Amino acid sequence: MGPGHEFDTIRMLMARWGDLAVDIGDDAAVLPRIEGRQRVISMDACVEEAHFRRAWITSYEVGVRSAAAAISDLAAMGARADAVLLAFVVPDSWQTVLGDLADGIAHVVRASGARIVGGNLSRGDALSITTTVVGSATHVVSRRGAMPGDVLVVTGRLGGPGSALRAWFANREPADWARTRFVDPTPRLAEGEALAAAGAHAMLDISDGLLADARHLAAASGVHLIIDASAVPLGPQIDVPLALSSGEEYELLAALPPDVADRLLLEWPARFHTPLSIVGSVVASDVRGVVEIVGMPASRSGDSGTTRVEFAAGHDHFSR
Amino acid sequence: MGPGHEFDTIRMLMARWGDLAVDIGDDAAVLPRIEGRQRVISMDACVEEAHFRRAWITSYEVGVRSAAAAISDLAAMGARADAVLLAFVVPDSWQTVLGDLADGIAHVVRASGARIVGGNLSRGDALSITTTVVGSATHVVSRRGAMPGDVLVVTGRLGGPGSALRAWFANREPADWARTRFVDPTPRLAEGEALAAAGAHAMLDISDGLLADARHLAAASGVHLIIDASAVPLGPQIDVPLALSSGEEYELLAALPPDVADRLLLEWPARFHTPLSIVGSVVASDVRGVVEIVGMPASRSGDSGTTRVEFAAGHDHFSR
Repeated sequence: MGPGHEFDTIRMLMARWGDLAVDIGDDAAVLPRIEGRQRVISMDACVEEAHFRRAWITSYEVGVRSAAAAISDLAAMGARADAVLLAFVVPDSWQTVLGDLADGIAHVVRASGARIVGGNLSRGDALSITTTVVGSATHVVSRRGAMPGDVLVVTGRLGGPGSALRAWFANREPADWARTRFVDPTPRLAEGEALAAAGAHAMLDISDGLLADARHLAAASGVHLIIDASAVPLGPQIDVPLALSSGEEYELLAALPPDVADRLLLEWPARFHTPLSIVGSVVASDVRGVVEIVGMPASRSGDSGTTRVEFAAGHDHFSR
Repeated sequence: MGPGHEFDTIRMLMARWGDLAVDIGDDAAVLPRIEGRQRVISMDACVEEAHFRRAWITSYEVGVRSAAAAISDLAAMGARADAVLLAFVVPDSWQTVLGDLADGIAHVVRASGARIVGGNLSRGDALSITTTVVGSATHVVSRRGAMPGDVLVVTGRLGGPGSALRAWFANREPADWARTRFVDPTPRLAEGEALAAAGAHAMLDISDGLLADARHLAAASGVHLIIDASAVPLGPQIDVPLALSSGEEYELLAALPPDVADRLLLEWPARFHTPLSIVGSVVASDVRGVVEIVGMPASRSGDSGTTRVEFAAGHDHFSR
C-alpha cells in the first residue's frame, strides 16, 4: 500500500480488524461458495444526526449499532451471516475516533461469524456507515407467508431503546438497562435460524417497533393480525404503549403454526437466553393488512382497550 | 405501503424502475442461484463535493456515474453483473431531482443486465449514493497474477475525464468528447469477461488513472511493469501526461501472455467497438511493485523520456 492519508486510514482499519478482514484489495471480493443454501443480501445505513447523536453514545457504540442493525436483517430472514462490506463517509472530526468505531464494528461482526471482505472510504461532512451484509439460509423466511391460524411470537423484552431515546430527548440519562438495549443490540441470528428451521411462515425484525413492523407483516402477507397487548414482553419499568412503539429493537417477530410454536416454546429456554413470547395471532378475516390491538390497559378516558389499526397492503420498505 | 414521506419516495423510485427492481420489501433480498460461477461483490460510494459538483453535471448524470463506477468493479474481475443494491442519503434539496437520478441509475443497471434488489433510504445533509454490486464469474481475475513476460493491454482511449475535470476546475466548459467520457462512462463488462475468458493473469479498472492503477497492479502482483507512453491510446486533443493521470476512466488494464494478447487483438474489432491496445509489459526484475514509463515525449528541459516510479508492494485499496 502506498503513502497517503486514505491509505493510512485503511492500514489502521486493517490493523484493528486483523484476521477478521480477508482478501481486501481487489476491485471486488470473491464470496466463498455455499452448498445447498440460498444467498441473501441487505444494505443498511447509519447516518449521524439521522440515526444517532454524538452526545448520546460513544464511537465504539456507533460501530456496534451500525453493524448490529445491518446483521439483524439477516437474522430476520433466517440466515446466518457470511460477509460484511463497509462504506464509510468520514468527516475530519471523526478521524481520531474511527479506530474505536472500527472496534465496535469488529465486536459485532466477529460474534456473528462473518468476515469483512470489502468496502469503501470517502470524505464527507457527516459521518455515515453503510453496511452491506451477505448471508445464507437453508430456509429463507420472508414477510409474506403469514396465514390465518398462525400465532405471533416475539423474541426478547421490549421498550428499552424507546425508553433510552425518550430520556435523551428530555435531556435525561437513560436507565442502564434501556441504554444498553440501545447501544448494544444483539442480532438474533441463532434465534432466527431456529425459527426458520422450525417452519416459521413469515418473519421480520422489529427495528421500526413491534406495532409498525406487525403492520408491515400484515401488509406483506395480506392478513389480519391481532396483538394481545397484555402479552407483550416488557423490559423493566416499561409500559405497554412504549413497548409497542419502541423502535431500534432488533428483536424478531414471526408467524408460525400453533403446534410449532408450542414445541419451540418448550425447548426454547434450554437453547436460548433470550425469551420467546406468544403475543398474538393471525385471524381469518375479510380485512387484510390490518393490525388489531386487544388487551390494552384501560386509558384514563375509559376506552374499551381495543384499537384497530388500518394499514394498506403491499410492500412497505425499499429495504431494511 | 403505508403513508409517509419515506414511503412516498420509495414508491416514486419503484415506479421509475418498474421491472428493473425485483423482490423489494423484505429485510434482505434473496440472490438467484448461480451454477458453476463464483460470486463477487463490491461497494462504491458517490458523495456530493467529494466525487462531483452539482454545477458540473445533471442529476441524471450523477445517477449514471454512480452506477457505472460501481459496476465497473465487476468488469474488472471478469464478472457479469447480477444484482445491485442502493443506499441513498438524500438532503431535502435533492428530493425534487431524485427521480432523474434514479433514471440515470436505471439506464446503467438495465444495460448491465443486473436487477435492483434492495437498498436503503436516509435523510442527510449531503447527497451520497452507496452502491453494492453483486456479480458472478467463470474466471475470476484479481490484481495479483501478473507475471514477467506478460503484456499489458488497456481498453478505450484515455484522458477524457481528466480533461473534463481540468476544464471545470478552470471554470471552462469541457470539450464534448471529454465531458461525455466523464458523465457517461460505460462499464466494460463484456470486454472484462472476454479478457478473463482468454486467460488474463491480472486485471483492474483504471478509475484512479492508468499510472496509479498500474502501480496498484505492480504492487499487488509484486512485479515490475514497463509502460510505453507512446503506445497509450489518446482521446482527441489529449496529451500523454493527461492520459496517464486521468482518473475516473473505468477502462480496464490487464496483464496477459503475449500469444493470448495477439489472438485477442486479432478478433477484438469484430467483437467490440471499444479499442484494445498493448501499452506495456511485465519484465523480469529484482525490483517489484514498480512502474517504469518509457517513450515519454521529450519535455522542454530535454529529459531522457524515461521515468521510474517506485511504489511499495502490498494491498493498495480497502476496496474499489
